[in-house]
Amino acid sequence: MTGEGIPIGAAEIDAAARVIAPHLRRTPVAHSPAINERLGVECVFKMENLQAAGAFKSRGACHVVFSLSDEEAARGVLTHSSGNHAAALARAAQRRGIPCYVVMPKNASSVKVDNCRRYGAKITFCEPTLAARESTAHELQQSTGATFVHPYDDWRIIAGAATCAREFLEEVPDIDLLVAPVGGGGLLSGTAIAAAAHAHPVATWGAEPVAADDAWQSMRAGRRVAQWAPTTAADGLRTSLGERPWQVISRLVARIALASDARTAHWQEQLSRELDAPIEFSSAVPVAALEAARSSIQGRRIGIILSGGNV
Amino acid sequence: MTGEGIPIGAAEIDAAARVIAPHLRRTPVAHSPAINERLGVECVFKMENLQAAGAFKSRGACHVVFSLSDEEAARGVLTHSSGNHAAALARAAQRRGIPCYVVMPKNASSVKVDNCRRYGAKITFCEPTLAARESTAHELQQSTGATFVHPYDDWRIIAGAATCAREFLEEVPDIDLLVAPVGGGGLLSGTAIAAAAHAHPVATWGAEPVAADDAWQSMRAGRRVAQWAPTTAADGLRTSLGERPWQVISRLVARIALASDARTAHWQEQLSRELDAPIEFSSAVPVAALEAARSSIQGRRIGIILSGGNV
Repeated sequence: MTGEGIPIGAAEIDAAARVIAPHLRRTPVAHSPAINERLGVECVFKMENLQAAGAFKSRGACHVVFSLSDEEAARGVLTHSSGNHAAALARAAQRRGIPCYVVMPKNASSVKVDNCRRYGAKITFCEPTLAARESTAHELQQSTGATFVHPYDDWRIIAGAATCAREFLEEVPDIDLLVAPVGGGGLLSGTAIAAAAHAHPVATWGAEPVAADDAWQSMRAGRRVAQWAPTTAADGLRTSLGERPWQVISRLVARIALASDARTAHWQEQLSRELDAPIEFSSAVPVAALEAARSSIQGRRIGIILSGGNV
Repeated sequence: MTGEGIPIGAAEIDAAARVIAPHLRRTPVAHSPAINERLGVECVFKMENLQAAGAFKSRGACHVVFSLSDEEAARGVLTHSSGNHAAALARAAQRRGIPCYVVMPKNASSVKVDNCRRYGAKITFCEPTLAARESTAHELQQSTGATFVHPYDDWRIIAGAATCAREFLEEVPDIDLLVAPVGGGGLLSGTAIAAAAHAHPVATWGAEPVAADDAWQSMRAGRRVAQWAPTTAADGLRTSLGERPWQVISRLVARIALASDARTAHWQEQLSRELDAPIEFSSAVPVAALEAARSSIQGRRIGIILSGGNV
């Protein structure tokens, strides 16, 4: 069902699900009659905001960490993302009892630093430039032999992320449209692959802030357009699309729907209250995007992935 | 399968599950290889600590609130419990758009007050005695016509609580021992009824702090023994067993296992870390009790209900 050149499908997602099952949770599915009424469509929410380490990122991170050979694992894992991916990777490494090295800009927020430290990450601070992060990570990798784990441009990460939509469709098989936020594209590409592998057709949409619309631009241009100076408050969605996610998204995603930060802020508050759980700003983007697009989705049953709850 | 005189069984639990489904979540099931190793048995955890309003209490509260006729509902609901039950009742009432009155002792902790206020409860403070709580609640009921909702001595509450074990056994059908904490007994009695209604035999144990051991005393005496001056830190488990829960527990529960507060504190910390989520002190009692009883449970597959996460 997946396009040519995409090396993962149902079998790889199921294999990833088996690897991560002992370390993660099957997150709940929730409904809100009040939100359905306000949007005029039926929404079902997959609460990855209640996932271990507070985000879907734990799926990919556990998949990589628990797929390493003992020899590789002993040398540890390494990343220079400072958000949910780093915390998820640190947690997975801690469960396997191996080191996790995280390179962070020295101006990273204390929340992000603490989120990694609580899972025992070894943090190296560097100057707040991409060049400094990459060179520091490279030196650290040379000296430790740790496996570098990219937050999204990695098929193992994408297969891990895909387990979320697969679980969602198992539990609510009659969803006909899945919506996930898109930053680097790991979650969206995994979602699209799982949707394409489902028993009946399910469309996949990405949702993106207007102020970080590289996926939308890329779809329009038919080639990957880099993100330039994003100004959105959705800090999880500021990164540019990765090469591997783009291979999937360009073939399997029907539409990138855009959301303003103002409506996202509104829906973050509504969702937190209605679903009674912490919802990250980035996680409210799909609902704000659906609201803007609601004239074209009447009568559909929409599955929305709430990607994280670290607020 | 349930004993004579117990008015709820599989059909009533399923009916309750249908009533509450739109308002609650199917909470995740989690494993911890590290905890299994330390206890020498296989444990599976039902994470009601991730339930809406942070505890299993939402199940019973939603069952009552969404079973009221429109006429009854319009007059609101009322309780004088100040813990998780009150918050859960307030949340359910808020979702139905009806008032929830809560009588609280004027020395109630600000956490408990805030937990109710965030769901719009109308709080009346009274002197910190049981007599004052009951008389204040009675007056309020007279003046408002609200339906009084007992936190555990009510078959609708018990049927609601039972949906948790029913869901748990649906997802992990080969559990052979279910363990739930026991305070007033709503969760434990519901769990025992669901276990008795399962396709194959599942034993049910209650877990109780040594310093609030009225269920253990009651089982030994063969009659309901009231709790006298409990000193446990497990504030959710200080109440005496209710009459209806006792009818069930005395017939269907195999054993009350006891836990020290010291070991409960240890396990609260371990569980929070291993399962990566907030765990109430009361919710760690079953694991501490199983640790003390572990010589008699080797080789069994044990399902543990983590009752709440409001810390």
